[in-house]
Amino acid sequence: MILSTVRVADRTHAAVHGDDGIHLLEASDLGSLLRQPEWRSLAEAALEATPIDGSTPARLVPDPGKVLCCGVNYLDHIEEMGRERPDFPTLFGKFADSLVGDGDELVLSGTGIERLDWEAELTVVVGATVRRADRDQAAAAIAGYTVGNDVTARDWQRRTTQFLQGKAWEALTPIGPVMVTADEFDPAAGARIECRVDGEVVQSSTTDQLLFDSVDLVAYVSQFTTLRPGDLILTGTPGGVGDARDPRRSLAPGQLLETEIEGIGVLRNRVV
Amino acid sequence: MILSTVRVADRTHAAVHGDDGIHLLEASDLGSLLRQPEWRSLAEAALEATPIDGSTPARLVPDPGKVLCCGVNYLDHIEEMGRERPDFPTLFGKFADSLVGDGDELVLSGTGIERLDWEAELTVVVGATVRRADRDQAAAAIAGYTVGNDVTARDWQRRTTQFLQGKAWEALTPIGPVMVTADEFDPAAGARIECRVDGEVVQSSTTDQLLFDSVDLVAYVSQFTTLRPGDLILTGTPGGVGDARDPRRSLAPGQLLETEIEGIGVLRNRVV
Repeated sequence: MILSTVRVADRTHAAVHGDDGIHLLEASDLGSLLRQPEWRSLAEAALEATPIDGSTPARLVPDPGKVLCCGVNYLDHIEEMGRERPDFPTLFGKFADSLVGDGDELVLSGTGIERLDWEAELTVVVGATVRRADRDQAAAAIAGYTVGNDVTARDWQRRTTQFLQGKAWEALTPIGPVMVTADEFDPAAGARIECRVDGEVVQSSTTDQLLFDSVDLVAYVSQFTTLRPGDLILTGTPGGVGDARDPRRSLAPGQLLETEIEGIGVLRNRVV
Repeated sequence: MILSTVRVADRTHAAVHGDDGIHLLEASDLGSLLRQPEWRSLAEAALEATPIDGSTPARLVPDPGKVLCCGVNYLDHIEEMGRERPDFPTLFGKFADSLVGDGDELVLSGTGIERLDWEAELTVVVGATVRRADRDQAAAAIAGYTVGNDVTARDWQRRTTQFLQGKAWEALTPIGPVMVTADEFDPAAGARIECRVDGEVVQSSTTDQLLFDSVDLVAYVSQFTTLRPGDLILTGTPGGVGDARDPRRSLAPGQLLETEIEGIGVLRNRVV
């Protein structure tokens, strides 16, 4: 199934996408829906109802309790950044209000950021509460997958050893447009992941190139903290980031950032 | 004023401590109280009411939207860790459920952590919404100060460059027991900050040794994200951590961890 959060008039709703259109659910957003253990059957039932006319995408999960990111997780990105292949996932956090949705603008102007960079990422949406999960339990706790871009203020990231201040900027991390449930999307099958700036492909890899896969990451994180429905894990970015190019490249106001994962969708955000 | 969160029977309440005892407020905890703009006058009014009998400390702010920590912020700790004096604060995050309160046990058994370390920290409690604050605005947004211990799984922290997985363990970061409002506590006056393990002083410094002071940190963080009432900033730890000792030391089950800041109070947590 394909699930999302949509806006109709002045309210948001969890939604399920059928062949005949978009069907609304009672929940106010996908995160709220996933907090209901019967979310899957609720979504299946909603598919039987009449589709709606006229909705726009909204933030997929507006209030995740936890947003974690994995760095150094695609072999080609590890090579371009000159790093060693790691034994453990490199994890850092973002805040819920770091996130925006499909179609939202990325406001660079006035921030003082000098080097804004792209990082296309497969993003795991957690669908159950898990702690100290083994691989089977971790796999069962993944509701589905979406597209994310871990847009990074490189100049701030490089100020200290810790990435947070370059990564947790308010409203600079787009996530969406939809979540495809885990039974219909398998990262190990090697879906194309691509980042484009004004149509130019700047990152292109496949999701089977992840060193620590989605199940590894859920299981690993769950060793030290509880993951709950609606939590997000951005799984890392492939090669091609602007910072590793010669000459270095950055995002500029006016540019269109497109992040696409084959089988999920395209996330479009204009830098302003 | 001295504010806290206390438990009476099966409910928690924000509370204000007077000379005659503890007075309850309507809010369920200090974080909820601080989200009411008139929190100060509510607390002053509550001081006039009859104090209660019999309460126990509860988690000071059970659900902060953001918990940030500053590393590398006391000159003596920078020296013991062999680091350079930084130009910018080193920031990382924790989760709301990383926190526990005064008197809560720190459960080490069964975690797989091999090197659990102490880090006594002055902790800022945010009392207003701030974004892109200058020093005056940042100072005005500090509700008060409490005591924290950024208890760290050093072995996990050292697995990668990013501290999160050593720092964001569930229920291992004690905060409390009370918040002293900013008009009654000035870190620049050099309050003694001390960490004790089974009564032995393992850290002892003064809060005027912070490189980036509380106001700097609020102002700096607010450049990239919004701080809101109840958010917490742990300002960094002085020298004397177990990891920098020769031989290295760690916390073990049965030990009593006491974290004290002169003028605020003592936070007591048993490792089990």
